[in-house]
This record gives sequence, C-alpha cells and structure tokens, in this order.
Amino acid sequence: MSKYVYSFGGGKAEGTKEMKNILGGKGANLAEMTNVGIPVPPGFTISAEVCNLYNSESGAWPPGLAEEISENLRNLEKEMGKRLGDPSDPLLVSIRSGAAISMPGMMDTVLNLGINDEAVSGLVAKSGNERFAWDAYRRFIQMFSDVVAGLDSKKFEKQLERIKKEKGAALDTDLDSADLKELVARYKTLYKEESGHDFPQDPQVQLKLAINAVFDSWGNERAIVYRNINRIPHDLGTAVNVQAMVFGNMGDTSGTGVAFTRNPTNGEKKFFGEYLLNAQGEDVVAGIRTPRPISDLENTMPEVYKQLVEIYQRLESHYKDMQDLEFTVQEGKLYLLQTRNGKRTAAAAIKVAVDMVGEGLIDKRTALMRVEPQQLDQLLHPRIDPSAAVEVIARGLPASPGAAVGQVVFTAETAVEWAAAGKTVILVRSETSPEDIAGMNVAKGILTSRGGMTSHAAVVARGMGTCCVAGCGEISVDEAGGSFTVDGAVYKQGDTITLNGTTGEVIKGSVPLIEPQLSDDFATLMSWADEVRHLRVRTNADTPHDAEIARKFGAEGIGLCRTEHMFFGEDRITSVREMILASDIDSRKAALAKLLPMQRSDFLGIFKAMKDLPVTIRLLDPPLHEFLPHTEKEAEATAAVMGVSPQELLEKAENLKELNPMLGHRGCRLGVTYPEIYEMQSRAIIEAACELKREGYSLIPEIMIPLVGFVNEFRVMAEIVHKTAKQVMQEQGVELEYLVGTMIEVPRAALTADLIAEEAMFFSFGTNDLTQMTLGFSRDDVAKFVPEYIRQGIIKEDPFQVLDQEGVGQLVKMSVEKGRQTNPKLKIGICGEHGGEPSSVMFCHSVGMDYVSCSPFRIPIARLAAAQGKLKD
Amino acid sequence: MSKYVYSFGGGKAEGTKEMKNILGGKGANLAEMTNVGIPVPPGFTISAEVCNLYNSESGAWPPGLAEEISENLRNLEKEMGKRLGDPSDPLLVSIRSGAAISMPGMMDTVLNLGINDEAVSGLVAKSGNERFAWDAYRRFIQMFSDVVAGLDSKKFEKQLERIKKEKGAALDTDLDSADLKELVARYKTLYKEESGHDFPQDPQVQLKLAINAVFDSWGNERAIVYRNINRIPHDLGTAVNVQAMVFGNMGDTSGTGVAFTRNPTNGEKKFFGEYLLNAQGEDVVAGIRTPRPISDLENTMPEVYKQLVEIYQRLESHYKDMQDLEFTVQEGKLYLLQTRNGKRTAAAAIKVAVDMVGEGLIDKRTALMRVEPQQLDQLLHPRIDPSAAVEVIARGLPASPGAAVGQVVFTAETAVEWAAAGKTVILVRSETSPEDIAGMNVAKGILTSRGGMTSHAAVVARGMGTCCVAGCGEISVDEAGGSFTVDGAVYKQGDTITLNGTTGEVIKGSVPLIEPQLSDDFATLMSWADEVRHLRVRTNADTPHDAEIARKFGAEGIGLCRTEHMFFGEDRITSVREMILASDIDSRKAALAKLLPMQRSDFLGIFKAMKDLPVTIRLLDPPLHEFLPHTEKEAEATAAVMGVSPQELLEKAENLKELNPMLGHRGCRLGVTYPEIYEMQSRAIIEAACELKREGYSLIPEIMIPLVGFVNEFRVMAEIVHKTAKQVMQEQGVELEYLVGTMIEVPRAALTADLIAEEAMFFSFGTNDLTQMTLGFSRDDVAKFVPEYIRQGIIKEDPFQVLDQEGVGQLVKMSVEKGRQTNPKLKIGICGEHGGEPSSVMFCHSVGMDYVSCSPFRIPIARLAAAQGKLKD
Repeated sequence: MSKYVYSFGGGKAEGTKEMKNILGGKGANLAEMTNVGIPVPPGFTISAEVCNLYNSESGAWPPGLAEEISENLRNLEKEMGKRLGDPSDPLLVSIRSGAAISMPGMMDTVLNLGINDEAVSGLVAKSGNERFAWDAYRRFIQMFSDVVAGLDSKKFEKQLERIKKEKGAALDTDLDSADLKELVARYKTLYKEESGHDFPQDPQVQLKLAINAVFDSWGNERAIVYRNINRIPHDLGTAVNVQAMVFGNMGDTSGTGVAFTRNPTNGEKKFFGEYLLNAQGEDVVAGIRTPRPISDLENTMPEVYKQLVEIYQRLESHYKDMQDLEFTVQEGKLYLLQTRNGKRTAAAAIKVAVDMVGEGLIDKRTALMRVEPQQLDQLLHPRIDPSAAVEVIARGLPASPGAAVGQVVFTAETAVEWAAAGKTVILVRSETSPEDIAGMNVAKGILTSRGGMTSHAAVVARGMGTCCVAGCGEISVDEAGGSFTVDGAVYKQGDTITLNGTTGEVIKGSVPLIEPQLSDDFATLMSWADEVRHLRVRTNADTPHDAEIARKFGAEGIGLCRTEHMFFGEDRITSVREMILASDIDSRKAALAKLLPMQRSDFLGIFKAMKDLPVTIRLLDPPLHEFLPHTEKEAEATAAVMGVSPQELLEKAENLKELNPMLGHRGCRLGVTYPEIYEMQSRAIIEAACELKREGYSLIPEIMIPLVGFVNEFRVMAEIVHKTAKQVMQEQGVELEYLVGTMIEVPRAALTADLIAEEAMFFSFGTNDLTQMTLGFSRDDVAKFVPEYIRQGIIKEDPFQVLDQEGVGQLVKMSVEKGRQTNPKLKIGICGEHGGEPSSVMFCHSVGMDYVSCSPFRIPIARLAAAQGKLKD
Repeated sequence: MSKYVYSFGGGKAEGTKEMKNILGGKGANLAEMTNVGIPVPPGFTISAEVCNLYNSESGAWPPGLAEEISENLRNLEKEMGKRLGDPSDPLLVSIRSGAAISMPGMMDTVLNLGINDEAVSGLVAKSGNERFAWDAYRRFIQMFSDVVAGLDSKKFEKQLERIKKEKGAALDTDLDSADLKELVARYKTLYKEESGHDFPQDPQVQLKLAINAVFDSWGNERAIVYRNINRIPHDLGTAVNVQAMVFGNMGDTSGTGVAFTRNPTNGEKKFFGEYLLNAQGEDVVAGIRTPRPISDLENTMPEVYKQLVEIYQRLESHYKDMQDLEFTVQEGKLYLLQTRNGKRTAAAAIKVAVDMVGEGLIDKRTALMRVEPQQLDQLLHPRIDPSAAVEVIARGLPASPGAAVGQVVFTAETAVEWAAAGKTVILVRSETSPEDIAGMNVAKGILTSRGGMTSHAAVVARGMGTCCVAGCGEISVDEAGGSFTVDGAVYKQGDTITLNGTTGEVIKGSVPLIEPQLSDDFATLMSWADEVRHLRVRTNADTPHDAEIARKFGAEGIGLCRTEHMFFGEDRITSVREMILASDIDSRKAALAKLLPMQRSDFLGIFKAMKDLPVTIRLLDPPLHEFLPHTEKEAEATAAVMGVSPQELLEKAENLKELNPMLGHRGCRLGVTYPEIYEMQSRAIIEAACELKREGYSLIPEIMIPLVGFVNEFRVMAEIVHKTAKQVMQEQGVELEYLVGTMIEVPRAALTADLIAEEAMFFSFGTNDLTQMTLGFSRDDVAKFVPEYIRQGIIKEDPFQVLDQEGVGQLVKMSVEKGRQTNPKLKIGICGEHGGEPSSVMFCHSVGMDYVSCSPFRIPIARLAAAQGKLKD
C-alpha cells in the first residue's frame, strides 16, 4: 500500500528536500529543516499523489488516507501537548497547498483551523488575551468561508465594515473583544444564510473540508489557465501541508522576529535583524510598533538568543548561503517558521560570495553562481538614494539603467548649448533619431514618450551608459512649445526632474543620488568569471570613446561598430545627403569621395582604441531616408550644395519614404542597389587598417554585411569588398588579413545558414531584427500591446529584452548548426541587445557561440553570465 | 582507356538522349535524332569529361583525344563527301558548347569553321555564289576573333562600318562580293595587329583552337558567377559539338524552313510552317523575303516534301508531342537541324493534349502534364488582340491578368458615378486602400504607381478578376488635380487608355480586345485534373458574388473570407470608426452592437452562396488605423456621431499610427487588447450558422485567428470563440459543429507549430505575411530593390508571386510536420496569394497540405497544378 502522509517534527521528518515531486516545494523544505534539527512547528504533508487520486475519484479519499491523517494528527497533538478543539488548550493548525512547481496565488492559506465556540475559550485562557482569541476566531471564519466554503468574501467584509461603523471604530484594531465576539456571531449567521449549513464546529470536519478545498483548487479555472500558459503538467497535483500554529503574542515570554545571517545591504558578516516581544509576525511587518534590533534579544531572552545564534550558524553552514529567517517564540520556546536564501543587494551578493570563498564555505564556482548578473547593473550606474522620498509623476520603460537629475530640454541643440553652459540636462523627446546624437551625448538622462526597449533612444542610451526612460506614454511632449504635460501638470524647459532608468520612473524635482563604486570584491569575482568562461565578451561601440570605456569594463574586442552614427556629424551630414539624393552615379561617387577621408579617420580612431583586439564593422544599414533633411532649412542647405531646388530635393525625399521601413530598402539591399557606398566604406576600412599595419599593429578587421537573407546577396557584396581590398592593398603595398562575414538577422538567413556559411567567414546574430521579424513585432510599435501581453501572461518577458529562446532561439540554434556543418571554422557571435542579458548570454553559450557583444556598461554582466553558462554545463 | 568522342550521322549515333551527363543536352539530342533515323547533319561530340581533364591539366589534351578527333573527323568527311580545307569543295563545321544543364549565353557558337584563303574558292565554286562565300569567310573571321581569340569585337565592327561608309552601303547586304573580299583582307590585318599572329589558315588549327576556347569558356568569370548563383556544380564540364554545316542557299535545289507538326495557335492537327528556296535559316527569320506556306513545298520539291511529311509524323510519334522543326535542303538533300517540343498558346496546348489522348498517342496523365497551368490565365480574361498595334506609354507590374480599355478616373467616387452613368472606367491611384473597394469593383482596370504584386490593389483586383497594373513608378499621379503624367505627357480624367495586366503595359488610347471563351476541351482537361488531384482547391472570397464566381470555376469551399472588407460599406464605416475611437469599453460595445446584425447578414449571404461547402472566416486582421477617417469631412461626421470634437478624434487617430504597421498592432493582437471585437464577430458567425442549421444546411463554419505567434495567443482567442459559441447555441437552442484554427503567417508560429497544433483544429498558411517576415521584405516597399535583385540574378522570381521554397518553404514544411506530430488530424491549407501559383501549388501538394485557396480566377490553374503535383509523385 502507498504511503500518503509524511510527518515532520520532533527533530525528524519522513521526507527530504529531494522529495519535491511527492511533498511539493513547501513540504520538502519543512522536512529538510526538521531533519537539520531546526525547531520548526511540527506537522505533516499529504502527498501530491493523493490530489490526483482524489480528483480522478470525483472527490473520494483513497482507502487508508483517513487513517494515516488521524495517526499523524495524534502524533502532532502529542508533540505539541495540545489537542484539536481542546476547550482548555486547543491545538490550531494551518493548511497550505504546495506543488512541486510554485504556482503563486493559486490557493490561499487557511490559518487558525481548529477554533470553535469552545476552543476559543481555551485560547483566551492560554493567551490571557481575549481580544486575540476572538480576533483569531473571526479571521478563521472569514478565511474558511472564502477559501473552503467558496462564499462571497465581500459580504463578510461588509459585516466587518458595518460593525466598525456601529462601534465608531476607524481601524480593525479599534474593535475590542466584545465587538469581535459579536462579529463572530454575525459571521456564523451569515455563513448559514449563504451556505445553508451551520459553520462547522467539529475541528475534524474543518480539517477534512480544508484539505479537500486544496485538492479542488488544483482543478479551478484560474489554476488550469496558469498551468496551460506556463506549461506545467496537469497531473503534477498539489501536496497539502498541515502544520501546528504557534503564537508570539502569548505574553512576555513570547515574541517574533526576522533576521539575516549577514547584512543584506552591504554583505557584512554580522547577524542582522529585528524582533518584537508579545507580537505576531504581521506586527513586525505592519510597523505599528517599532521592532528592536536582534542583538537586544541577548538581554531579553538570553537562552533563546543563544539557541537562535547556534541555529543561524547551523543553517548558514547547511545551506552554505546567507539565510533569511522568520522565527516565533511561544512561551519561551523557539520555532523557526521559515528559512530561505536571503535577498540582497548586488554589493552584498558580491561581498558574501567572495567572503564565503575566503571562509572555505563555498568554492569559486559556487560563488560565481551566487550573484545575479543582472544585479551588477546597480553597481555600474548612479542610483537613487533608497532612503529618499520621491514623487513619481509617470512610468515608462526602464530602457537604460541608472538615475539622473537635470533640467528638462526639448531639442538636441538646446541640450548641447545648456550643457556647454555647465547645466545638467535631461533631454525629453517624443522619440529620438540619429540626428539627436549630439544632444543625447551631453544629456544626463533621456526621456521619450514613444518607442520600446530597443528604440533608438534606448539602444543609444544603453550604449552611452546614459539613464533612459523610454515609451512613457503617460506624458505628452510638445517639442515646439518646449514643455511636456502629465496628468494635467505642465513641465517647462528648465524645470528639474529625476529619472530612474532602472525602474522606468519619472520623478518630480531633484532627488539625491548615490554614485557607483566598484569594490575589490567586484574585481575578484570578475577575475574568477574570466577564468571559467568560454564565451568571449565584446562590445558594441561606434566611437573611440565608447571603445575605451568598454576596454575598462573588460571588452575583448568590438562585436558591432555601426557606421551610420558617424554620418551624422555636422561636417558630414550634408555630404551624406548629397550622396543619397544624387540623381546619377557620378554625383553619388563625388559625394562619397568627400566622405571617404572622414570614414577612414573614424576607423583609424577605433582601431587605435582597440589596439590589436578584433573589430567588427558593419557596413551601412538603416534606410536612407533616415538621413534626409527634415526641415525646410536643412533641405535648403543641401539643395544649395547640390545645385538643385529645395522642391526637387523634397520630392526625392518623399519618394524614399516607406510604409514599413524596417522591412524595406536597407542593409545590404542598399549595397546591391548602390554598390559604390559599400565600396567607399570598404576602402575606408582597408586603408585605415593598412596604415596601422605599417605602424606595427597586427589587426584583422572584420567587415560585416547587414541584413543578408540570400546567399547571393552575400556573394555579390563580398565580391565588392574583396575587389576593393585587393585594390587598396596593391596601392598601399601592404598585405592585410581581413574577414568578411554577415549578420544573421533575417529569418531566411537562419534557414539557409548552411549555404551562407559556405561563403561567409563569420556570423553575428542581430537578434533585435531577428526578433522583430520572427515574431512580427515592430520594436517601435509593440508598446501598444506587449504590456497587455505580459499582464495577461501570454508572454513572460519583453522579447526585446530577453531572447525568446522557444521561438527566435530555434532559428539561432539552427543557424549555428547549419553554419558549422558547411564551415566548421565559422566564427559566431551575437551583437543584438540580448548579448548583455544574462539568460540570453547563457543561451548563446549553450548553443556554442564564440562571443557575445553588448553595450559597454553591460560587459561585466555578460562576463558573469558567460561564466554561469559554462558552470551550468 | 576512356572514350572521349561520340559520333552521330549516317543513321546511327554512339550516344542516346539519356547520356546528357556525358554529351551535354545538345549532344544527347543530336544523337537521339540520328538514332531515330532523322537525317541530321553528321558530326561528333567531345564529352564533358574532357573539359575537366583539360582544365585540371592546364589546357593539355588527354592522351588519345587528338587521335579520336582525327578519326571522327575522317568519318565525318567521308559521310559528307567533303574535306576540311578542300580548295574545291570544303567541309565547313560548327562548334558549339553544351553542358548537361543549359547555361544560356555562356559561350557563343563558331560557325563556318574550315574556311581559309583557299577553301573560300571552293565554296564559291560549289555554291555558285561568290558573295555568299566571302560573306561566310568574313563572318567566320569576325566570330573566331571574338569567341576564340578573345579580341575586341568592337574593332571588327568598326572596320565593317568603315567599309560600308566608303562604299556608300546603308545595310550589310548592300556590300557586294568585292567589298567583302576587301573586308576579309582588312580583318586579317586587324587580327594580326591585335593578336600578334596571322589568322590561322590551317583548318585543323582552327578546330583545335575553337575546341579549346569552348573548354576555356567553362572557367570564365561570367560562367562561374552563373553557376554559383544557379548552384550548378563546377565539375560538370561542357561537351563540345562539332557538326557539318549545311547550306540552303546553294541554288534552286536548296532551301530552308521551319514547321510545326500541328497548329501552334489553335492546336488544329495540320502540318503547319513555311519555307524559302535558295535561302539560309536567318532569311526566314529576318523577313526580308516572304516565305511560302509549307504545303507549297509539295509542288516545288515533291520528294523532299514526302520525306519531310514522313519525318514529322515519325518525330511526333517518337516524341509524342507537337514538334517545332527546322530543316535545310542542300542540293536536294533534306537535313533536319533541330526538333523540339513546339511552343503553343494555351488554347492549342489544351486541344493538342486532348486530341492526342483521343488519338491514343498519350494517356490522360501525360495530357495533364502538357499544359502549363499558368497559361490557363490567358483563357480566363479578355486579352489584347495580338494583331493590334499598341503604343506602350509605361510599364508596371503585371498585377492582375487580362486587359481593359476605359476612361481614366482618379477617385473611387468618380469611378462609381461614371460607371453608374454607363461609362467604362479605369481607376488610377498612387495606391489603393480598402476605402476604394466600391470604385475598384466597378472599374474595368486598375492602375497604381506604387505597391507590389501583393499590394492592396493587386490582391483585390485578382480577387475580382479585374485587370491591374501596379507599382508603375514611371507615372506620376496627381489625384487631387485629376491627372497623371508620364514622360512629360499628361493624361486627364476622361482620357482613354488600355491596360495589359498580363504584361504590365499601359497603352495609349483604345485597343481591340479578345473576349475569353472556354472550350469543351478545357472542361475535359479540368475533369481529368479533378480525377487525379489529391489537393482540394478552395477560393479566397469576401462576398456572395465572389463566392458564386468561384463555384463556377470549381471552388470546393472558401479558404479565406476576410472580414475587414465588410467594414467599409457606407452604412458601416461610421460604426467601425466609433468602435475604434471609443474611449471606454462600454462605448466600444455599443458601436459593436450596431455592427453585429450587419456582420451576421454578411455571413448568412456567404454561407448560402457556398451551401454546405466549408467556409473559413478570418477574424479582423488589419491595423485599426486603416479604418480611420482620413479627411476632415470624415472626421467631422464620425465626431458628430460620437459626440466628441473632430480635434480629439484626429489626435486619437494620430496616436494609432505606427512606424511599421505590418509588424504592429493587428491580427489577434487586436483580439487580445479588444476582445469584444472578436466576440462580436464570433457571435455574428455562429448566429448566422445556427439560423441556416435550422433551415437544414449542414455547414461547419471554420473560424480563423490571424497573426498568431504564441500558442497562448491562440488559447486566449479560442477561449473567446468557444465561450461565445456556447452562449449563442444555448440562446438559439441549436447544436452546431464548428472549428477554430489559425493562420500560420508569423515565422514564430511555424517554429512552434507543434505547440499551436495541440490547441488548433486547422492551420492555414498566410504565405504573404510569412514571406514578408521570413525575408524581411515589406510587400509595399520591395519595388525599390526587387527588380534590381532579379536583374542581377540574386533572386530568380518575385517571392510574392512564387513561393520561396528554399527559405519560406522550410518553415511551411516544418509547420506541417510539427503540426501533424502533435495533432495528426490537423487540417492544413494555404490562403496566401501563392495558393494560385502553379509551382507553389505543387509544393503545397508535396508537403502534404489538404487544400489550397486562391482568388476565383486562379482556381482552374490551381486544379491543374494540383493534378500535376500528384502526377509528379
């Protein structure tokens, strides 16, 4: 016969932490703590298997279950020295569900089960607190009615409100024991009216009904939908935990508290926490009474404190991690209600991990797994002083982490002017475009009302390490008028606001910031990561300045140097416009000839900054119309240089507009239709490289063709590069090694990666575009529905932040496999925004990429994630 | 030792038509004709293997090759009774390349090889035509210099032009034999200057150099690029054909002609052709002399005619297809130069195929393979009388086949007005939108300056069977001014033009049209196709009218009924706008309530028209802003109904605009954010179906969710449909079977088809969108680069016309496999534009789909293609 019930208590448990499938997560943990010798309130767990039997038998208990429960209940009563329903000293129990996979919110908990009209007197007697006892009773009825009997909880709330009104009580706590006694009576009446039955007085009946309610809850609609969406098997079932209640409010020998085995803020190795005498857990949280530091407990309850210290040390060495404890002392007896790995700041996580290695508690590999890579972001950017009061006026997307305080300006020009005058500014725009680069560069923070996590503003801000809140639809920006409006309030140019790019909050006025500091422990942990990881980490950088920052953060090369941002300098944009608007190939070549020396010096600067590290340069990618004159003034300037009328120019510009530019004439499609552009860029790269080669550099430039979907596109474009390179090398008399590779960002490229790899020397996944096309999500337009998708649980995360491994990931995996199949030496990396997101970095490791490339400020995150990926192998 | 050379002639050949890999296509065919007993000029083929040996040995001939060639040449001389270089009667030969896979334009032919200063006199003597002989010599030098010696052909052209000027000759034919003799001398001088050698006089040397030139041409850049792009293996090699020249201009017992074994225009079974006495092949083609009908040959050369009739009958029964012959009579002796399957019109193709079955020559299956499905289009639409003179003023995309003559109008409103007044109109727009439907419906033809093969205009026009030329960038449309301009000429409202939607031509004025007629043979062939095919053929139809046309063409159901077109009726658009612009859910529901009865009657009409055949209805798909008011007047009308200001309305409309609407808030994303829309549509469908169920129909509506990428989207949307259906069925007291399925049009849906198929009852591939996203090609914007792609050979066909099997096809195949894996009963079809394109239909068959769905006028094409797909299995 099967065993259905597993006890824990009295220093031993029938289960272990490995038995999650049988006992559920909660049950397994309770068993584990008991076995370690931690005094947890005893109880027993009904296995998840019973849930399935119960449901397949339409609610009948399997034979033997009732007997097992009775026996365990008897043992529990013996252990606690109390009996269920005892009118002088009743045992109360809690009933909680707990499946092997956590399903938060699936079923509420029932506390205080076992109280009835008689037992309540026992509780009064034992606690000496009549109010507490009656309050426990009324809470039990309320919870039971809702969770077990399925009655309308609003009707019970109404009764509570009514009695408060009658008694002139503002708060629940203003009701005295007589009021609560009266309320219990009314609740019982209501219960009978609503259910047709008396409120069950027999604790055994209460228990049976509560257990069944847990089993029933497994099959309710909400739970089924949750499991469908999260792909949790329906036959997993839930376990039921029945555990003795203990109370910290049974007089001055009772109390309750929470503690951390180390300081969760800074990681210092010191017992840390607080407690309250004669109180319940919720009192500590509620903050009605001010708790006392845990160290005081040594004076108040020396024995308990000694035991607690011994326990916390035992727990830390058992779990080998900093623990977060909840404890209750009932009449001098200490109970641990919960222990779990404590949440901590990034700084604490690093210090605890490095310290524990020093203490010999864990090894380096474990230490590396102890820090959430994403958390490192906190350390690399200024952040808002957590103790500061803030008035949040709007919320947008947390597009680039960190915080910034500054005066709002509405144009890039003003930003540049004001910054030059020594002001700190925050640039506010509907959306940004490459023309705004100069203004974005000097701004402390950027706020946009449109665009997603990979909008222009977001990508550029992350690259610069500048704080950014994007897609903040609540604000309405009037750029011309120089103000933005939110909820009726108007913020004008020069007004001060604070941005929190880590949370997406827009805050009124100025708030104190904490500047980032990198500790020695940080450096130590990073060096461990570097020892372990297999994936190389490069950076996305377009300027020598970015490249230098990235090297400081540990970049091992540039994985993506975009050439388009270089086109927006004041000295260049007119020539770029001439090139685009040229009506024949000769005038286009003349314009390109003006750009050539500038591009060459761009590449010289970047190659020098990266000195011998690999640099991947992407040839021109965005649709040409992005570069076009937008204002009449700009059109006139360009028209004058080109000797045409502004009218002609505007017509041509109009003609370049596209309905879906993301899927339009861009990337190598420009290279195919205007080969002279790629020719000029290839020449600039090779000329710069030859010059440095002569100076003794040993660089191997990597030239990357964007938006390839057909191998023939790559063939034709690579041919241009090779032809140009050959010519330049002959001119310069220099032999230079270089690579020609491609972005994999169009689904078709992934599907035909075997053919493309026959020609290309490297692949770099452009997962921003690959995500856009694979999901059919325009990154600029998803703000209209992605938040709703996440709210409804249709998707779990923004796929532009976290790589969609189930969908896009299949294409990535397929490309790597197909590519290596025809070209085993193929170098493979990723340069989309996902290259700095931990779970995505681990995925890149798992599919066998050679490197990831991310914005400079995410490099430490990628280094750690890469190490964790390797450790998980 | 290997055999390198294969002879043909004298009634037998060493090769056969199966030996293409050795002899190349041309050599294998010459061998075949010879073996059948057809008198072809004798010769020999040097195998493709030699080409590889030659190239791997840097141009050396393999041992034994020279001997084999000599021996074959001796036999050839014996067979022809002439010798190479004989000063009294020289043998002349042609040298032609010929690989197993045709590579057109890879190498030119060398004709008349064997002439030298002595042999030319023999040619004069034998032909009695001094001019012919010297012309042959100068042509030979010119060809040899270019193709074999690789000299600049322009310099030879210049010499020719110079002598014409000197002699006052307007045409080449104005030069007499003395002039040509002089030209030969100058050519030889030029040859020496350019090559540094005398022009080779030894015919053996001429031959060796010409053979080597063919081998060399295999490795030239153009050929390598061609093979790369077409994925032809580089080690295939080319064969070389050396064949005796014969001449039809050796006096009145010589002649030349072309003939078809049946009439290629109407298929009539009657020998058909023409010939010229004392002429060369090019004279027939050049049209300088008027050829005589082939029947006359019976009088002129009764013996030859008798032999020719016997040969054509033999050829037709050998190849079992209508043949296209070229023949030459040299001094009374008949030679067949070529036979191949004759090109024919659709009408002829059908008649020949059906007749041949009647004659017992072929079986039905072969007959089905004999008609190009695409050709059927000719029969289903009016077309331009091929004998009419036309003045083409512009060319666009052949977006919807057929032809139309009419007066141009520039707005849908005018089209409706003028059509009501009895005029025939052609609607000219920059691009069309769903608002133009009424105007498009009454227009005989549609012309747009923007948009591709799957633009709105193209898709709708094909659906209506209306002729359409789209994306005609050469014309500039001024809709407000009521005119379009092309090449400086202005066409005003009311001017008459003709459109050829089959070729994309825009023609000035009115041109006579031929109306379509479907023959009994057509019906016969279609019935054979239906017996064979496995794939069902449905139609894309949005109205009862379209549905009825489609049934006449053989539709077996509706595969795609779009619900959005129904929203544009004058009685509806205001309610639709109310719905979209509603600021809360209650006002949205109020607007939807107005739409419900209209949608219900739409579906009633369609269900009735299809009577018991399956109907798939797609829930609302396009981005909402497509429905928004565009003009101030429209905005005011909607604002008045809604009780808001036009200003407010325009702001809201502005807010709905997207940067890339194709990847934006549309399809089921609307269903997720505004579930009440899909709820209304589901209700309308189920209510209509219940009503007809009560009347005795046995329909099973298929409700289709568009743009699904995540199984959770489908789950949430299907839930809405099921809930609504349950409610309606309860209300109506009717039990109704219905299906809920999804479009597969987002790449992610294809990648996760196994998960989606667990929930969905059918898949329908939306290959328009799937192509857009897989290739990253916006169908509205590709006109800027796809033509250039095709020109450069990067892609072979417009992927919106012909399914990209290599890329998109992988996703389709993957979806079918994954889908059936988790749901073996899954019904699978396609409803993208490719569902009516023959190669795509065959692909759909090959991956195991259940049906294709296409516009009504493409149904016969799909039926035939489906049959061919099955026959190819």
